[in-house]
Amino acid sequence: MSAGWFRRRFLAGGPLPAPRPPGPRASPVPYRRPRFLRGSGSSPGAADASRRSDARPVRSPARGRTLPWNAGYAEIINAEKSEFNEDQAACGKLCIRRYEFGPEEDREWLTLCPEEFLMGHYWALFDGHGGPAAAILAANTLHSCLRRQLEAVVEGMVAAQPPMHLSGRCVCPSDPQFVEEKGIKAEDLVIGALEGAFQECDEVIGRELEASGQVGGCTALVAVSLQGKLYVANAGDSRAILVRRDEIRPLSSEFTPETERQRIQQLAFVYPELLADEFTRLEFPRRLKGDDLGQKVLFRDHHMSGWSYKCVEKSDLKYPLIHGHGRQARLLGTLAVSRGLGDHQLRVLDTNIQLKPFLLSVPQVTVLDVDQLDLQEEDVVVMATDGLWDVLSNEQVAWLVRSFLPGNREDPHRFSELAQMLIHSTQGKDDNLTGEGQVSYDDVSVFVIPLNSQSQGGSGY
Amino acid sequence: MSAGWFRRRFLAGGPLPAPRPPGPRASPVPYRRPRFLRGSGSSPGAADASRRSDARPVRSPARGRTLPWNAGYAEIINAEKSEFNEDQAACGKLCIRRYEFGPEEDREWLTLCPEEFLMGHYWALFDGHGGPAAAILAANTLHSCLRRQLEAVVEGMVAAQPPMHLSGRCVCPSDPQFVEEKGIKAEDLVIGALEGAFQECDEVIGRELEASGQVGGCTALVAVSLQGKLYVANAGDSRAILVRRDEIRPLSSEFTPETERQRIQQLAFVYPELLADEFTRLEFPRRLKGDDLGQKVLFRDHHMSGWSYKCVEKSDLKYPLIHGHGRQARLLGTLAVSRGLGDHQLRVLDTNIQLKPFLLSVPQVTVLDVDQLDLQEEDVVVMATDGLWDVLSNEQVAWLVRSFLPGNREDPHRFSELAQMLIHSTQGKDDNLTGEGQVSYDDVSVFVIPLNSQSQGGSGY
Repeated sequence: MSAGWFRRRFLAGGPLPAPRPPGPRASPVPYRRPRFLRGSGSSPGAADASRRSDARPVRSPARGRTLPWNAGYAEIINAEKSEFNEDQAACGKLCIRRYEFGPEEDREWLTLCPEEFLMGHYWALFDGHGGPAAAILAANTLHSCLRRQLEAVVEGMVAAQPPMHLSGRCVCPSDPQFVEEKGIKAEDLVIGALEGAFQECDEVIGRELEASGQVGGCTALVAVSLQGKLYVANAGDSRAILVRRDEIRPLSSEFTPETERQRIQQLAFVYPELLADEFTRLEFPRRLKGDDLGQKVLFRDHHMSGWSYKCVEKSDLKYPLIHGHGRQARLLGTLAVSRGLGDHQLRVLDTNIQLKPFLLSVPQVTVLDVDQLDLQEEDVVVMATDGLWDVLSNEQVAWLVRSFLPGNREDPHRFSELAQMLIHSTQGKDDNLTGEGQVSYDDVSVFVIPLNSQSQGGSGY
Repeated sequence: MSAGWFRRRFLAGGPLPAPRPPGPRASPVPYRRPRFLRGSGSSPGAADASRRSDARPVRSPARGRTLPWNAGYAEIINAEKSEFNEDQAACGKLCIRRYEFGPEEDREWLTLCPEEFLMGHYWALFDGHGGPAAAILAANTLHSCLRRQLEAVVEGMVAAQPPMHLSGRCVCPSDPQFVEEKGIKAEDLVIGALEGAFQECDEVIGRELEASGQVGGCTALVAVSLQGKLYVANAGDSRAILVRRDEIRPLSSEFTPETERQRIQQLAFVYPELLADEFTRLEFPRRLKGDDLGQKVLFRDHHMSGWSYKCVEKSDLKYPLIHGHGRQARLLGTLAVSRGLGDHQLRVLDTNIQLKPFLLSVPQVTVLDVDQLDLQEEDVVVMATDGLWDVLSNEQVAWLVRSFLPGNREDPHRFSELAQMLIHSTQGKDDNLTGEGQVSYDDVSVFVIPLNSQSQGGSGY
C-alpha cells in the first residue's frame, strides 16, 4: 500500500468542468464519425486501473477530503483504427513520500501533513500500435513506476545538493565537492527516475503482455511538474511544446527510424545477425533494383551525417533497415517509431527478425524551469500525439492557442475547450488553418496544461 | 600526380606578410620560454611533406604562376612537452578537379581554366599526444585524403542537386524526387567527403606508424571554405568559433570522455570484454573504495542522462571507464579525448586493454553559410587547440578580436598579429583578461580566418 496517491482523471470523475458543446470551428467532421471520449474509460485496461492499489480515487476514503485539482485538460479522439482507442492518457497528482517514516499507520497520518511530501503533477499520453494493450498497460502502470523511482531517491531530491551517499553518511570529506564538480542537482535525480520508470514500465508491459497472450507497443510522452520545474520525458513521436505570448519552445524531440538512423544502423553494424541477411543496413534515397547494379548511387552508413556515392553490389538490393521518408519511414519495414514501450514480441512479417533490439524504452528528458519564467495567464504546454502534429505545425498550434485564450479569460472551461478545439482543427474543416484542409486519420490526443496554475503551488482552475 | 595542389604555408614560405615583432601585450613570457614557430618546419614529419607528390609548392613549376593567397593566419607555440611540437597545422588552397577530363596533359591544361575546378581553402589544426608523429602525419596527409574524397563526388557537388546516380544516368524517373525528399544537397556530399577523409587518414596513420614503429595520436580540427560555405569538421577537443560584431557562434563541439560518456559506456555494455575485468563502465562522482561497499551512492549508466543511486558492490570498486572531471577526465585512465586520428597501438599502461575501440575518427561537421551572412570587415573564424580554450573563454576571445581588429584596419598584418596576440594572452601576462592570470602549459595553436576575403572569391589580404 502507498501513502502517495495517484488519480486518473478519466476514471475517477470528480470535480471537473462539465463538458460543453464544441463551437462551430470545433465540430466533428461527420464522415470521420469521431468518438469524443472524455478519457479512455471505455477501454478495459483503463477501467482495470481503478482497481489497482496505487490508483487512488480523488476522494480519499480515509479522510473524506477532496484534494485540489489543477492538472491540464485533455481531449482524445478515436480514429477507429481499432475497437478500443490506441491513444491512452493518464494524469493526476503525484505524492512522493519519504521512505523512512515508519509503518503504514504513520504514513496514513502523513496525508494530513502535505509538507512532508513532495507533491507534483503527472500527465501522460500513450499512442499504441498493434492494438491498445500496451498503451492501456502503460497508462495504468507508468505512474506507479515513476512514484517508486522517485521515492527511492527522494532523500537526495530534497537535500540542498544530492549527497554522494543516499544515507547522508560522509565516507570522504570531499564528497560534496565531487558531487558539485559533476554538477549533479536534484533535477538530475528526477531525470534518472523518469529514465528508470520508463524502463521498469517496459519490463512490466513485456511480462504482462506475454502472460496474457497479447501484443503491441506504444509511445510515451510524460510531463511531470515537481519542485518548480516541468520535466518532459518522451519516447516516440508525440510532442510537447511551450506556447507563450512571444515564444514557442519545443519541449521534446521525436524518435523515429529517421531521427535515430545512426543509432539503429550502428547496432546493425555491430550485430549484423539482427538483420538475418534479409535487410541492408545502408540508407539509399530509394530501394535499389537490378538496374542499379554496378552504378554509383547516393548512400550513407552509420558513421555518416553526410552522403556519398557507392558502387551498388548485389547485397545492396536487399530491403533497407530503414526505408521510406517522413510519415512513411519504417524500421525493418514495420514500425514508424524507434522508442517506446512494449513490442517485445514484434517480428517482421513472416520472419523471425525481432524489432525490439532496435527500440529504446529510455526517454529523452527536457527540463523547463517554470519558477524562472515570468509567467503570463495564457502560458500553456500543449502535449499531443502525432495525430495532431501530422496536421498542425507548432506555429499553427501556437496561433490557435493565442487566438483562443485571451478572448475567453472568464470561461472556467477554456483550457478544456482549447484542447477540444485543437483536435477539431485536425478534422479538415478549417482550410485557412491547415492550408489544404488536411485531415488526421490517426487517433488524436491533446493535453493543454496551464503553467500559471502549476507555479501557484497547486491551486487549480 | 594531381592537377589539384595543396600548399603548406609553414613549409613553402611564399608571398606571406613578413613577421612583425609582437606588440607589448603579445610578448612571450620569459619563464615559459615559448618557441614561437612560424609553422612547424622544425619537425621532421612536416619537412617530409614538401617531398610528397600531392603537396605542391605555392609557385607552380609548370607555369611559373603564383596563385593568390587568402587563407587565415596562424600562430603556434610549443609548450616543450616534447622535442617536436605536438601541435601541427596545415593550410592552403584546395583545387578539386573533375575526374573525367582525360589524361594528365589535359589536366595540366586545365590549370589555365580555373572555372573548371572547384576552388576552396583548407585549414587544419592537429594536437598530438604520445609524441608528434600522428599530428605530423595528419598534417601531411589529411588534405590529400579530402581532395580524393571530394574529387570522387565532385560531379554531384556541381549539379543543381546531387543526382541519384553519379553518372547522371536516370534509372528511375522519380529519382530526383527521392533525392529531393531526403533533402540531399551538395553540402551533404562535402560533409560525407570530410567524414570519409578523416577515416581514410586514420587508416593511413595506423599503417605508417606501425611500419615505422612509432606511436601516438592527435585531434583534428579542419575548416574548408568551398562553394560559399565554411565547413568545420572536428574530432577532438580543439574548437572553432565565429566572431562577429554582435555574435559569437560556436562552430564545433568538443569530443572528450565526458561529452561522449554515453557512447563509450554503451560500447562497454555491448562488449564488456573490452574492459578485461579491470574497469567498471559505471560513472560515480569519485572512485569508490571499500568503505562505500553496501552504501547507496550516486551513479549513472550508459542509458542515463540523469543520476540515480545504487547499492555499491565489489565490482563497482574497479577503476572507472571514464574518470575525473573537466580537464582531468580520462578514458581508461589514459586519454583526455574520445575522437581523433591514430592511437592504433595505444594500450592502458601495463595491460593489453586497447583504447582504439572507444575512439572515433569520424568528425562532427557543421556548416556555416558564409554567402548568407551580411559580412563585415572584421568577421573572423578563430580556430585553436585546447591550449587556448583552457585559458580563454569564447567571450574573452571575442573581446580580444573586437578590441584589436577595428583599430588596426590599415595594418595588412593584423590577422596574423591577432593570432599571435591570442596566444600571448594564454601566457598569464594579462590578469584583467583571464581573471586569475591563468597560464596555458599546453601547446597552443591559433588560426584567424577573415571571412570577408573568403566571400570575395579568393582575393586575399
